[in-house]
Amino acid sequence: MKIKNICLTDEGDEKTASKGQNCKLWCQKHIFNKKTINKRLPITAWLPKYDRIDFLGDLVAGITVGLTVIPQALAYAGIAGLDVKYGLYGSFLGAIVYIFLGSCKDVPMGPSAISALLTFTVTKGNIQKTVLLCFLSGIIEFMMGALGLGFLLDFVSGPVSSGFTSAVSVIIITSQIKDLLGIHANGSTFLKIWMDVAKNIHETRWQDLTLSISCIIVILLLRILSRVRVGPKDELQRTKKQKYMTGFFWIFGTSRNAIMVITCACLVYGLELFGYSNVFTCIPEVEKGLPQLTMIPFSLTNEENGGNGAMNFFEMVAEMGFGLVIIPLISLMENISVCKAFADGNAVNTKQEFIAIGAGNILNSFLQTFPGNGALSRAAVNNASGVCTPMGNIYTAIIVLLSLQFFTPCFKYIPKATLAAIIVAAVIFMIEIKVYHKVWRTKKIDILFMVITFISCLLLPLEIGIFIGVAVNSGYLLYNAARPNVDVSVLKTNDSVEYLMLTPDRCLMFPSVDYVRNLVNKQSLKSDLPVVIDCSHVHGVDFSAASVIQTLCNDFKNRQQQIFFYNLTPSVLEVFEGMKSDNFIVFYRIDRLDDLINENKPSRRSFLSNI
Amino acid sequence: MKIKNICLTDEGDEKTASKGQNCKLWCQKHIFNKKTINKRLPITAWLPKYDRIDFLGDLVAGITVGLTVIPQALAYAGIAGLDVKYGLYGSFLGAIVYIFLGSCKDVPMGPSAISALLTFTVTKGNIQKTVLLCFLSGIIEFMMGALGLGFLLDFVSGPVSSGFTSAVSVIIITSQIKDLLGIHANGSTFLKIWMDVAKNIHETRWQDLTLSISCIIVILLLRILSRVRVGPKDELQRTKKQKYMTGFFWIFGTSRNAIMVITCACLVYGLELFGYSNVFTCIPEVEKGLPQLTMIPFSLTNEENGGNGAMNFFEMVAEMGFGLVIIPLISLMENISVCKAFADGNAVNTKQEFIAIGAGNILNSFLQTFPGNGALSRAAVNNASGVCTPMGNIYTAIIVLLSLQFFTPCFKYIPKATLAAIIVAAVIFMIEIKVYHKVWRTKKIDILFMVITFISCLLLPLEIGIFIGVAVNSGYLLYNAARPNVDVSVLKTNDSVEYLMLTPDRCLMFPSVDYVRNLVNKQSLKSDLPVVIDCSHVHGVDFSAASVIQTLCNDFKNRQQQIFFYNLTPSVLEVFEGMKSDNFIVFYRIDRLDDLINENKPSRRSFLSNI
Repeated sequence: MKIKNICLTDEGDEKTASKGQNCKLWCQKHIFNKKTINKRLPITAWLPKYDRIDFLGDLVAGITVGLTVIPQALAYAGIAGLDVKYGLYGSFLGAIVYIFLGSCKDVPMGPSAISALLTFTVTKGNIQKTVLLCFLSGIIEFMMGALGLGFLLDFVSGPVSSGFTSAVSVIIITSQIKDLLGIHANGSTFLKIWMDVAKNIHETRWQDLTLSISCIIVILLLRILSRVRVGPKDELQRTKKQKYMTGFFWIFGTSRNAIMVITCACLVYGLELFGYSNVFTCIPEVEKGLPQLTMIPFSLTNEENGGNGAMNFFEMVAEMGFGLVIIPLISLMENISVCKAFADGNAVNTKQEFIAIGAGNILNSFLQTFPGNGALSRAAVNNASGVCTPMGNIYTAIIVLLSLQFFTPCFKYIPKATLAAIIVAAVIFMIEIKVYHKVWRTKKIDILFMVITFISCLLLPLEIGIFIGVAVNSGYLLYNAARPNVDVSVLKTNDSVEYLMLTPDRCLMFPSVDYVRNLVNKQSLKSDLPVVIDCSHVHGVDFSAASVIQTLCNDFKNRQQQIFFYNLTPSVLEVFEGMKSDNFIVFYRIDRLDDLINENKPSRRSFLSNI
Repeated sequence: MKIKNICLTDEGDEKTASKGQNCKLWCQKHIFNKKTINKRLPITAWLPKYDRIDFLGDLVAGITVGLTVIPQALAYAGIAGLDVKYGLYGSFLGAIVYIFLGSCKDVPMGPSAISALLTFTVTKGNIQKTVLLCFLSGIIEFMMGALGLGFLLDFVSGPVSSGFTSAVSVIIITSQIKDLLGIHANGSTFLKIWMDVAKNIHETRWQDLTLSISCIIVILLLRILSRVRVGPKDELQRTKKQKYMTGFFWIFGTSRNAIMVITCACLVYGLELFGYSNVFTCIPEVEKGLPQLTMIPFSLTNEENGGNGAMNFFEMVAEMGFGLVIIPLISLMENISVCKAFADGNAVNTKQEFIAIGAGNILNSFLQTFPGNGALSRAAVNNASGVCTPMGNIYTAIIVLLSLQFFTPCFKYIPKATLAAIIVAAVIFMIEIKVYHKVWRTKKIDILFMVITFISCLLLPLEIGIFIGVAVNSGYLLYNAARPNVDVSVLKTNDSVEYLMLTPDRCLMFPSVDYVRNLVNKQSLKSDLPVVIDCSHVHGVDFSAASVIQTLCNDFKNRQQQIFFYNLTPSVLEVFEGMKSDNFIVFYRIDRLDDLINENKPSRRSFLSNI
């Protein structure tokens, strides 16, 4: 019993009734209604309901994320090939913008490892180019949101995304090896870095190496500590003491990066007090104070370009090339996967996220930094700390601002090896080995796309690598559309007349139509039985399909075999009927088939006229 | 009543039983059996049955095509920017090769207008580059056949192919305007040629213009004559005289190009006899005799490259670039559409055609010519003349060889305007206006792809133009795969329990899975009814789909709503089960639903463990 039946298409329910109304009414209905305002300015939805519990949750989470973002910002700036301060400059304004525009409570807008690496592959550490890239990325992200281009992300499949993330992790780890060993090494690609490392490996400083290995071990131990649960498994059965112990371990483990940085900085300071300076290679001194608002550099002088000649805006854009599309897409991909990971089955407002991240990056670029987004590592901390609304970002921003104002003089005591260890200990878990098993158990061919993406991202520029992965995977999809299965059965009607039933299992679009025509003819030529094409599974057709159906009808007419089409959906029927073929007979009840076969016995005349 | 049921995939019936057999048996079965030999050397299939009727049909058709190919070869060589002789050089060896390897009786292997234009866009009339292009195209075509890459052609849809052909026609007509007017004009793109024509229009020679207009009119009248039927419509009722008249009109009309060329050449010769030389611009003198076998030029000296510096093999290949893929594909596309047009519902042996055309071009290149294939215009003549086997090609080849040996001294009397008129009168019918109406009646959006291809082929290099058309159309296909329709109905079980039935209408692959997940969650959240996902139309899934199904099962488990999957095909079930989700329940009989709903009532425990 069917009670209601709605056929949904994309945003189908928002399309109703807009014709014939005047502009004012339309605006009232579509722009200034509460639902739209809540959607486009999400703060208006949650702020009125903000209460003490939200406040406490956000405060704890914001501060914890703040302690994570400072070491990450310093480290990621290094990945982007920039001075460490630029990482901090990008860690507060975007976060504040996100409070107003962001739709997902768990997103900690700021620098991310993937964006930093992509930025480096495009701008090679030139700060002016980086700032322009940040600005343009923001504009592109914003526009993609406004134009509803979020569907583009759907074309990055799980396996391709896994292959890409794993390759990024390997490259990031590679890029940190020089700091782990305390040597100098250049090069921007996987192979070049390794070659340079191999050449300079004899310069390894044992102090830096010892420190980095110890740091990695301690961080990994603290990571395990954060997961220790004291007492019984069921939280409700734990004693108060057990709860406090569990909480303490969790906080201690989660702040592991901040603890490592502070400990190592104290160690360096202590050693210096006792006269042992330059034991470890430290990061350069960081300018004190907040960043100044600076205009976006729309052209470069010869000096700004490192002596490679002056560049105008168009030359800079041309140099960024493909990266200008890929960086926004990949940032948003990471950001959306953060939203999905903690959405609990609720739909992600992709459009609004694009707008929020875009706006954040546009404003961030005036403070001189590289493109950012909600990073998965901090989002996990944010969620686990019990964040309730995007307001958590404000406390993170305050912590970053305080550190810029007061703690920058201490940064020169932070060893490079410690930051490298933090990065390695984090991204090593991004190498997705587990997914490999899952893919193998489900669809083995998807491993191919994973491996292709991984290898091409390692060996080619990252943006080309992921493009190849997406192209190959989409190509497979197209090939799949080109080769439908056609089920062939010989059946009998009620009057025991045999007929051939051919059932294509998917849409008939241009890549598949000739294949299906050949298949239908091949099967039909084996006998002279009437042929029925069951179109139950055919939900989409195009002009090429319609013209092949016409040819098929003619083929059958010429050899005096009967052909009937069964169970066409109205939209498919409409397209096929446009061809006005005279041998095109459709029916919807299988018990009508006997009548049809008798009514449409081929006449001699049509045979003669064909000689 | 199902009697037999076979599921067909590509070449499914050739795949059986090859493992575990030894090599000799395998070779006997797969290579040296009669069916394979007939397929790979089609002459072995038809020659043993060759009889008098075949001979007569082939003789008449071969001679008629021969009379057509000579003026076409001269004209198309001009389109390719080469001396007219190179057109004739490519009109016999390939045709002879085709007799042995070709699978379609109607294909007249030789120069074609589309290949000639594409050749010109790539090599700009340099004969050495053209010969190398012919050789490489042959190799690529042969390899594509051997590797079974014929499916690539399936991605050129009807509308894209129409748009391309129309653009080619317009460009060819444009390229002939200078000869129609008797002026000089250079430029290789549509716009540049028009600009150059506009600049030099004042040089128009009235003699050439008059001749070309008269030629076009006469050719079009002769074309109509070839379709005149004397007497009653039914052929059997005509008197003998009426039949002869019809036959005469047809031969006279079909040989229109040869007649025009001979008449105009006689006119020029006559005028010269009376002392009026240089009235019309004629083609330059053609070298007498057969071409010599020449080695393929794998490098160019500075002089051979027109003073643009020497080039080695790789530089030449790099310069051809994209054209090296597009020219073979487009030649083969024209060739295959010739085969399809006259196949009468029989399957086209695409693989063998690729091999035959490839081999023809490889050998042709040693005689110095440009890439060729079965041209649609001559194929129509061939078919209408009653060709019975590919043997017709031998008579065509003989005619071309005779003309090269004996008639070349007369070629200098052929006016350029006449050749241009022949081209214009032929390709004007390739502008596919009729298709526009058909597309409009069936699937309106396909017009967009037609127009995009047409415009981009006119304004950009041809090979880029068709690539854009194919990319946009394939993009639409992918978008279509990304946005399936999901039918939503509220139904009741036998025990009157309401449930929500969601039916996606096509395969679930990576671009669509998140969309479907959101849609399912959105619909399910409106009520707490049990949800049934009907997978009857889902015939293909991938890893991304499997992981979204797992997420969906978890989403439902977390909010204690029931979800069931109905009617999965075995291959889909296998993929989904690889995820090992504990809330994944499949059923195949709708009357089992009541039991399932009762058995799987969500427990409180699962709710608590989730807090």
